[in-house]
Amino acid sequence: MTDLSQDAVVEAASRIRSYVHRTPVFTCHTLNDVVGSELFFKCENFQKVGAFKARGALNAVLSIEDDTSAVVTHSSGNHGAALAWAASLRGMDCYVVVPKDASKFKRASMRRYGARLIDCGSKLESRETKLDEFLEQNHARFIPPYDDPHIIAGQGTATLELMDRIANLEQIWVPVGGGGLASGAILAARGQAEVVGAEPELADDAFESMKTGRRESPREPVTIADGLRSSLGDQTFEILYQARTTIALASESEIAKATRMVWEHMKIVVEPSSAVPLAAIIRHPHLVKKRIGIVLSGGNVSFPNTF
Amino acid sequence: MTDLSQDAVVEAASRIRSYVHRTPVFTCHTLNDVVGSELFFKCENFQKVGAFKARGALNAVLSIEDDTSAVVTHSSGNHGAALAWAASLRGMDCYVVVPKDASKFKRASMRRYGARLIDCGSKLESRETKLDEFLEQNHARFIPPYDDPHIIAGQGTATLELMDRIANLEQIWVPVGGGGLASGAILAARGQAEVVGAEPELADDAFESMKTGRRESPREPVTIADGLRSSLGDQTFEILYQARTTIALASESEIAKATRMVWEHMKIVVEPSSAVPLAAIIRHPHLVKKRIGIVLSGGNVSFPNTF
Repeated sequence: MTDLSQDAVVEAASRIRSYVHRTPVFTCHTLNDVVGSELFFKCENFQKVGAFKARGALNAVLSIEDDTSAVVTHSSGNHGAALAWAASLRGMDCYVVVPKDASKFKRASMRRYGARLIDCGSKLESRETKLDEFLEQNHARFIPPYDDPHIIAGQGTATLELMDRIANLEQIWVPVGGGGLASGAILAARGQAEVVGAEPELADDAFESMKTGRRESPREPVTIADGLRSSLGDQTFEILYQARTTIALASESEIAKATRMVWEHMKIVVEPSSAVPLAAIIRHPHLVKKRIGIVLSGGNVSFPNTF
Repeated sequence: MTDLSQDAVVEAASRIRSYVHRTPVFTCHTLNDVVGSELFFKCENFQKVGAFKARGALNAVLSIEDDTSAVVTHSSGNHGAALAWAASLRGMDCYVVVPKDASKFKRASMRRYGARLIDCGSKLESRETKLDEFLEQNHARFIPPYDDPHIIAGQGTATLELMDRIANLEQIWVPVGGGGLASGAILAARGQAEVVGAEPELADDAFESMKTGRRESPREPVTIADGLRSSLGDQTFEILYQARTTIALASESEIAKATRMVWEHMKIVVEPSSAVPLAAIIRHPHLVKKRIGIVLSGGNVSFPNTF
């Protein structure tokens, strides 16, 4: 079992504090009425690089103690941008192995933050082969997107801030992809609030894994919640399973509808991954307590050129 | 000449304070870099009913001193919703004369706030006829959308708050439709900052009016900035002309692009009308000072059902 605890999250918070935004917490009467609970939205769409991923990546980069001058990761989006941003703060180079079919918008964003992109195929094996090749030929530190203690602790700081800002939350709802955000939330909440994960039906490996008690292989995920196509890692599975984390699912149309609800009623831009908890909350009212926090994970979405 | 002054704006601020949001001021490094100035965005998209119009409508309604029990206006959107909201706070009925071709989204919003809609044709004359008919047959107070001292003073409170929050602004950029927001800004700023108006090329009556020195008739406006299709009134023209207000134009594609820039970089939802100042700022760099406030007028926009 991993020996991570809330202390690691508190340490991460102090490490990254002066570089990341303490993002605001928004409320929305209309959505409260829809759900029948008080909702408190932690707006990580306003975070550096537009996503909570800045927290974990920076915590990992600031935790490097040797003379590493380059970092590498695989990502189809926000983690790659976050790592590039974090690396640039320490003057390090950053390489990102990116599937060829990753969104152009997120590729451009990674490049804007200084990442050098290494193309790979869309399958897991292709990504791993490319990464291994790179690490054999280059002196660089691999910073995983989620299955890493520093990443998990860093992501937990979002929940730490939310619970610090809003007292007596009964639940924290977070989207689940690789499980870094959810694992960090579990550590940060330390049982004071229940952490509930929300996952697209089309990428339901965490849901299945919690049922069977072992890490289930992902299907080839095709959800519009493109930040949630990853599957749990060894460490994130363990943390979620130890906490017997409830995972609630939402369909593609429910996710799309919830995304538009956030845009239209809260007047903020979130990516579909961010709206999966709201979609799952609306679908599963019996799981929902009265005073709940929701982490809006990111806001990196591109809009078409026409109205 | 109108005898409105900054005092009227200060009075309005104190009258409406406990009902409206003191909206936040956002900044964005990326947009600062694009423009080459420091930009401070007053986020009236987060205001009650999703637009600054709540300020003026409420100031007008709270200023009614007799036993009026119903108010009426004409509006294709935000003013109607704002008036319905304000009327409901005093238990008054609210009627809105609405062009048949007004956006369904904004019609639904007006209804949600309790407005009763009266359909009219899309031309000015049809609207005025319907309104006159209604006033002949009903005991109701007409609250104009912009050409009214209480409305103007109320809208000015957005600029008052912005200048109170951010010191030493050189300019305040606002979108111009009927001119209520711009007139209020001029009163609020009282020469301490220059107020610059931004208008769609396809609805450029204020631009033309400032050139000729008289109120020019509008074309039939077709701009995507649907909040700016109105033309100046007698009082708003006078205030803008007395101040020799600069009006900067933007094309439809510039407005669409600026709208997407706000969505994608600031992660907030604004309606196209709100993005007209940014579009005009990007187009007319020679008009732009170094430290400027921009009023994001509203966020009421509907998104298509598919991604």
